[in-house]
Amino acid sequence: MELDTDLGRTLEPFLPPITQKSTSAKDTNSVDATSDVNLPFITLTWAQSLDGRIAAGSGTRTRISGPETKVMTHYQRSRHDAILVGANTAVTDDPKLNCRYPETGVNMIRPVIVDPSARWTYSSSTARKVLLEKQGIAPFVLIRMDTKIPTEEEDLLNGDGGQFIRLDFPKDPRENWLQIFQKLCSLGIQSVMVEGGAFVIESLLTTNLPDSVVVTIGSVFLGKEGVSVSPKAVQTLKDVVWWRGQEDAVMASRLTSK
Amino acid sequence: MELDTDLGRTLEPFLPPITQKSTSAKDTNSVDATSDVNLPFITLTWAQSLDGRIAAGSGTRTRISGPETKVMTHYQRSRHDAILVGANTAVTDDPKLNCRYPETGVNMIRPVIVDPSARWTYSSSTARKVLLEKQGIAPFVLIRMDTKIPTEEEDLLNGDGGQFIRLDFPKDPRENWLQIFQKLCSLGIQSVMVEGGAFVIESLLTTNLPDSVVVTIGSVFLGKEGVSVSPKAVQTLKDVVWWRGQEDAVMASRLTSK
Repeated sequence: MELDTDLGRTLEPFLPPITQKSTSAKDTNSVDATSDVNLPFITLTWAQSLDGRIAAGSGTRTRISGPETKVMTHYQRSRHDAILVGANTAVTDDPKLNCRYPETGVNMIRPVIVDPSARWTYSSSTARKVLLEKQGIAPFVLIRMDTKIPTEEEDLLNGDGGQFIRLDFPKDPRENWLQIFQKLCSLGIQSVMVEGGAFVIESLLTTNLPDSVVVTIGSVFLGKEGVSVSPKAVQTLKDVVWWRGQEDAVMASRLTSK
Repeated sequence: MELDTDLGRTLEPFLPPITQKSTSAKDTNSVDATSDVNLPFITLTWAQSLDGRIAAGSGTRTRISGPETKVMTHYQRSRHDAILVGANTAVTDDPKLNCRYPETGVNMIRPVIVDPSARWTYSSSTARKVLLEKQGIAPFVLIRMDTKIPTEEEDLLNGDGGQFIRLDFPKDPRENWLQIFQKLCSLGIQSVMVEGGAFVIESLLTTNLPDSVVVTIGSVFLGKEGVSVSPKAVQTLKDVVWWRGQEDAVMASRLTSK
């Protein structure tokens, strides 16, 4: 299934410029990031219910969006160097974190897992299965400086072409995300698609770092027990465009604070 | 400002049939309601933020939707016999509860306030000001059987053409709403537009009573402190259509359970 033409046109201004996609996501250390300027293009994107829930319950994975917008997710991934998720999503969903958009082939998107306490295990993950099937590349796992990793896990990830990256994780959300994105930029990643979960999205919505905010809304209410995405305070958007599908709508925008 | 033509077309299947609108909202006691069958057409409709909030804070009124969809609200009202809100909305917003859609004139929609404990005061309300300016008609105020109303308030409302209606308010939400809508039907109201607040919407979403669910989504996040609309449990929708405007999107649908 190909991306709906109208949806593609709607999304285009909110995607990293085509020239910005690295020729290889393995092309590391090509950019030296020492200042705020050296940041990748950051897309914040998720699918939610009408009542702003990304799952019907904590720790569950719920189908929210239809086939049209599922294609969109993989099209978006095909235009980014990396896909970033939090530890909770990695542990709960055990996602493939690869790109399956038919026109661009696979293997070209770097999974990035923000996992300060190393809750996620690479060796037994679906991401590794995907790599062994040559359908994806090895992740960068961001851990806290003092988090211990078993030697065999670290050797395995290094051998597969990924790495554990040790960071400070400052408490201030903006400082924290700046450090993360600057580090990724220094490793050659020029665009990052941030997909979840709720904690990661809400935290990034409180900063002015995302370049694009793209939300798919499925026509269902997931209810009060669902996992809500809502920032701490009012967050306004600009350059808003809507796309409407059969079951879902998509809103693409930029943060007013950007 | 007139309603966007495409939005009008999108909404039409979700509105009461034109023939169903009473010739006069004052045409009372024309229908005898003794069974479930004698119910008006019920539209459940509200405007919310992306994160499913209808206000930025409890007790505050927040601009969520743009001019295009504000026109829509009044167009919808012009197609219903009554507009229903809960006591909290009536007290907090002190709304006009009239119809200001230019093509149909005013005065033809009956305000209905669900106010078991009589928290709202008619004599000092904006709704009464609107009536005195001949821009609206007097409300029906639904109160609990044993709630005391000052004689002068009751005389004033009766004199203006409205009434206090005494009901049981059974605890079960569906029984409660059935009683309310059957009573309204018995008073000649053949279509009701339910506009809020959160408690009323959430309660009705747990029943299969609404005939249409129409949600306007403004492109803003109101944040965690906002007043959320989310039913107790998952609620699925059918016959979904989306309309997209400049700033807002509108989803019209029916409950799967209907």
